[in-house]
Amino acid sequence: MANKDARTPASTQTTDDASNGEAGKSIGWHKAYVEGSRPDLRVPVRQVHLTNGQSVTLYDTSGPYTDPLADTDVRRGLPPLRENWITARGDTEEYTGRPVRPEDDGIKHTSPRGGLRNLDAVFPGRPRQPRRSRDGKAVTQLAYARRGEITPEMEYVAIRENVSPEVVREEIAAGRAVLPANVNHPEIEPMIIGKRFLVKVNANIGNSAVTSSIEEEVEKMTWATRWGADTVMDLSTGRNIHTTREWVLRNSPVPIGTVPLYQALEKVDGKAEELTWEIYKDTVIEQAEQGVDYMTVHAGVRLAYVPLTANRKTGIVSRGGSIMAAWCLAHHKESFLYENFAELCEILAAYDVTYSLGDGLRPGSIADANDEAQFAELRTLGELNRIAKSFHVQTMIEGPGHVPMHKIKENIDLQQEICDEAPFYTLGPLTTDVAPAYDHITSGIGAAMIAWWGTAMLCYVTPKEHLGLPNRDDVKTGVITYKIAAHAADLAKGHPGAQEWDDALSDARFEFRWEDQFNLALDPDTAREFHDETLPAEPAKTAHFCSMCGPKFCSMKISQDIRREHGGSQAEIEQGMAQKSKEFAAAGNRVYLPLAE
Amino acid sequence: MANKDARTPASTQTTDDASNGEAGKSIGWHKAYVEGSRPDLRVPVRQVHLTNGQSVTLYDTSGPYTDPLADTDVRRGLPPLRENWITARGDTEEYTGRPVRPEDDGIKHTSPRGGLRNLDAVFPGRPRQPRRSRDGKAVTQLAYARRGEITPEMEYVAIRENVSPEVVREEIAAGRAVLPANVNHPEIEPMIIGKRFLVKVNANIGNSAVTSSIEEEVEKMTWATRWGADTVMDLSTGRNIHTTREWVLRNSPVPIGTVPLYQALEKVDGKAEELTWEIYKDTVIEQAEQGVDYMTVHAGVRLAYVPLTANRKTGIVSRGGSIMAAWCLAHHKESFLYENFAELCEILAAYDVTYSLGDGLRPGSIADANDEAQFAELRTLGELNRIAKSFHVQTMIEGPGHVPMHKIKENIDLQQEICDEAPFYTLGPLTTDVAPAYDHITSGIGAAMIAWWGTAMLCYVTPKEHLGLPNRDDVKTGVITYKIAAHAADLAKGHPGAQEWDDALSDARFEFRWEDQFNLALDPDTAREFHDETLPAEPAKTAHFCSMCGPKFCSMKISQDIRREHGGSQAEIEQGMAQKSKEFAAAGNRVYLPLAE
Repeated sequence: MANKDARTPASTQTTDDASNGEAGKSIGWHKAYVEGSRPDLRVPVRQVHLTNGQSVTLYDTSGPYTDPLADTDVRRGLPPLRENWITARGDTEEYTGRPVRPEDDGIKHTSPRGGLRNLDAVFPGRPRQPRRSRDGKAVTQLAYARRGEITPEMEYVAIRENVSPEVVREEIAAGRAVLPANVNHPEIEPMIIGKRFLVKVNANIGNSAVTSSIEEEVEKMTWATRWGADTVMDLSTGRNIHTTREWVLRNSPVPIGTVPLYQALEKVDGKAEELTWEIYKDTVIEQAEQGVDYMTVHAGVRLAYVPLTANRKTGIVSRGGSIMAAWCLAHHKESFLYENFAELCEILAAYDVTYSLGDGLRPGSIADANDEAQFAELRTLGELNRIAKSFHVQTMIEGPGHVPMHKIKENIDLQQEICDEAPFYTLGPLTTDVAPAYDHITSGIGAAMIAWWGTAMLCYVTPKEHLGLPNRDDVKTGVITYKIAAHAADLAKGHPGAQEWDDALSDARFEFRWEDQFNLALDPDTAREFHDETLPAEPAKTAHFCSMCGPKFCSMKISQDIRREHGGSQAEIEQGMAQKSKEFAAAGNRVYLPLAE
Repeated sequence: MANKDARTPASTQTTDDASNGEAGKSIGWHKAYVEGSRPDLRVPVRQVHLTNGQSVTLYDTSGPYTDPLADTDVRRGLPPLRENWITARGDTEEYTGRPVRPEDDGIKHTSPRGGLRNLDAVFPGRPRQPRRSRDGKAVTQLAYARRGEITPEMEYVAIRENVSPEVVREEIAAGRAVLPANVNHPEIEPMIIGKRFLVKVNANIGNSAVTSSIEEEVEKMTWATRWGADTVMDLSTGRNIHTTREWVLRNSPVPIGTVPLYQALEKVDGKAEELTWEIYKDTVIEQAEQGVDYMTVHAGVRLAYVPLTANRKTGIVSRGGSIMAAWCLAHHKESFLYENFAELCEILAAYDVTYSLGDGLRPGSIADANDEAQFAELRTLGELNRIAKSFHVQTMIEGPGHVPMHKIKENIDLQQEICDEAPFYTLGPLTTDVAPAYDHITSGIGAAMIAWWGTAMLCYVTPKEHLGLPNRDDVKTGVITYKIAAHAADLAKGHPGAQEWDDALSDARFEFRWEDQFNLALDPDTAREFHDETLPAEPAKTAHFCSMCGPKFCSMKISQDIRREHGGSQAEIEQGMAQKSKEFAAAGNRVYLPLAE
């Protein structure tokens, strides 16, 4: 989003750099901050400096890592930006948390290595006590919003979104938006998820039983946020789950989501039937104390729905959904997540952990889209959403999956109706099954459409979906593809300011300001590289043509001539036309310069 | 499209290879032919052999090049598949064509090199005389369809599309579909463009004043069709235009489109104002004699519309549009294409060249979408469409461009209304301007949507759009992205048989038939490569898990267990559930095998 048309006094505008003392700044972009109503409320933006002396302000998710003045060190973690805001509210208290056990990192007491955590890997930053609500105080952003309070977090996102803080408060209070911000994750730069705001993008990271390490996951997180991920989910399933998550949390400028069920299953050695409510609850508390901002909970996979999947083409494709289905079948009992949902709400409320109610029965193929299993679960998610809200727990709802285009709208419409307009958070959807290796594209199509129609956050899909674990390049491709889908939706929804980014880039294109085009691009590096492949020389970056048409055929140049000759009111245009035509002929009829032989 | 549910007797079906003698064939795919009502009517298909003994039949655009039994040689050209069909009709005749002149290849008499064509580059295949209609006979597929004739070309596409030949004839007769097939391009495998048929994809190739050679363009054409391009447009603008086009035409299994205006402009040394109707007409005849199947004609850019673009953000971005605008301004006269449109129709009719009425005033930025200039031209295209039809000339209409999602539907709805449902042929549209280097994706989103709503053919956009000339990889990425958009639209439109491809791939995925997933994929090479990056060993290709979840967490495996235990009717499922639960417990509650420590 370009903040050009700023709505709040605190926002920046597209400015003439010469007028605010930035004229001498080198061309390109730099990290800037917009100050709010207090000095410790500074919202980061990406300020792009154009060669025509103007600048454009863009939303920025990259955290202090892109600020040359910030002193970052992954071994220390990010500064606790929100700490004073949290403590000043006086409604939370530190306490002696649950001790970290070897099995939290997937190390079993039966292991030949003796059941010790790899302490060399433990996060070395400042020791901290976990924090939770005091005396049953309601400490969620939802509770504050309902009480009419505008928190610093709300003001922060209002500046980011270019809307008034009151709009933010209203949307959160109504349950139409969430601001995921665990009291134990003071490092985050607050952001909001809701259909009245910019469409957000989540990137998944996580080591698995098969491959990858702690360092890689931290690196993937910062890499994903650099390209625009608004949240990151750590879906680790292998060793060192607890420790990896600690590193990720302490270094993340964006909210972190998890699926606690994955870790709980590790604790019972992968035997779904040995899962218990107690083990699950303990895992949720462990993660809440670490600072996880939102948790996917598959409480909608009820015993009675499992047989509805038996005749599907691809059964249950959600890992969480299949684990819960296996548990229900093994015990022939109702899901322990569904049965204990109220108690789970109390826990999440104490830390302001946001629910992401998982769609464990989402379709995994075009054939299974919008079937009875999927919608039965959605109705249960609507019921759970109301329970969560009664505990002041912020809640969003997860959605599919694999859905052909003509069945996409039904998903968002039903979800909005059944779930009282709670934010929808969808995985794609993929609009066809036939293109493994290109599922960022099959799903980017569905993501753009469903976001236009109201989905608040999109979970990215990388080119490796269905095939393997994403590497660094895949993460970038996934994030960029989904930022495109999100921004296309922002445009289609008429989000205030969204189009000004496009306009700035199109102006640069029309005026052959190549460097400005690159700097304004979602991915400046690749845009510049592609241009240089065909026309590498430096003069080509100021040339008034490009490699597609060459100097003789340039349509943009002809248009500029037309504008020069015919710009102005319709009356002026018509009046001047015959006259201009004569001048054009008199001047030798030259629109193009002839190519040198 | 999977032809599994064949509608015509001539079509193949998903077959048990064992039953038709193909059991011994190696796993993978091979080129096969479906014979029509006559032995010289053989429709190519891609037959994918699955490891479960079945096979799936897919649409194939790759021509004889993928047939190991075909003896292809680019210096000889492809066999003239349609020659007997054309001559048997007896309504065309060979004649002494227009001589090829040095300026046809962009070589000027004023050139220091003496104005000689580079004869070494001339296509060496069999000499041929051009052919045109005899005694004012109507020789277009539209004329035949209107007379109630089902031509071999119509039967051919009916087999390809899995519909009855009568549907093909009706759609052509009504002007809702075109079958581009110049009588001088007997090499093509006929294909149809219309909203009742599979959505088609065009790939652009062409050398420019800046770079690339004849060999590269021929290679790009075969490469594009290998990945699924249904037509190819040769947009060359540099030297050797005539000769490059000859090589492309003689070797192309798909219809070839051009923009004759580009070559005409070369003949007047790039000076738009020196263009004349005579030079343009001569160029059209030159290209029609060579066999160009459809031509983009920017006859809708009328003098009065040019000033409507003056205050646009990005003016006129169509090369053809800007050339015509410059001509109109220079002379202050109505467009010579508009003024001479009837005569042009007579020429195109004589060769059965299809019109692609160009949208010279299409928007080049989000800001300019759906403006008065664009729609004024569209209304003129509607008028020209009726004139073309009165000459029995097949006609499609080109569309934008850059359009935000919420303005896309208006484009197809208006076009269908104004142009009597003539096939719409759109470039994307791009749904945002902010992602140069990813415009295959920004436009793939818009392309899928507009195709769902009725666009018949999509002109691809490569990652290099706005930045440089596409190389081989870019061509492939553009084609694959657009095949995804087209197939997603086929699914959403409920095209008969479209979903069977998805179903076959999803079945393979659910049953862990990795090789089948690869072979069914739109891009088998990349799917296999991505899988092997994470799990390279050969046993991994038969493993009942993948790298995303590892062996412990596999949701597909849990689903298979559920199906095994609960498949059947709803009554059976419910009855059996409690019992199965007990058995599950008795068997040790093992859904997963524990991982070795």
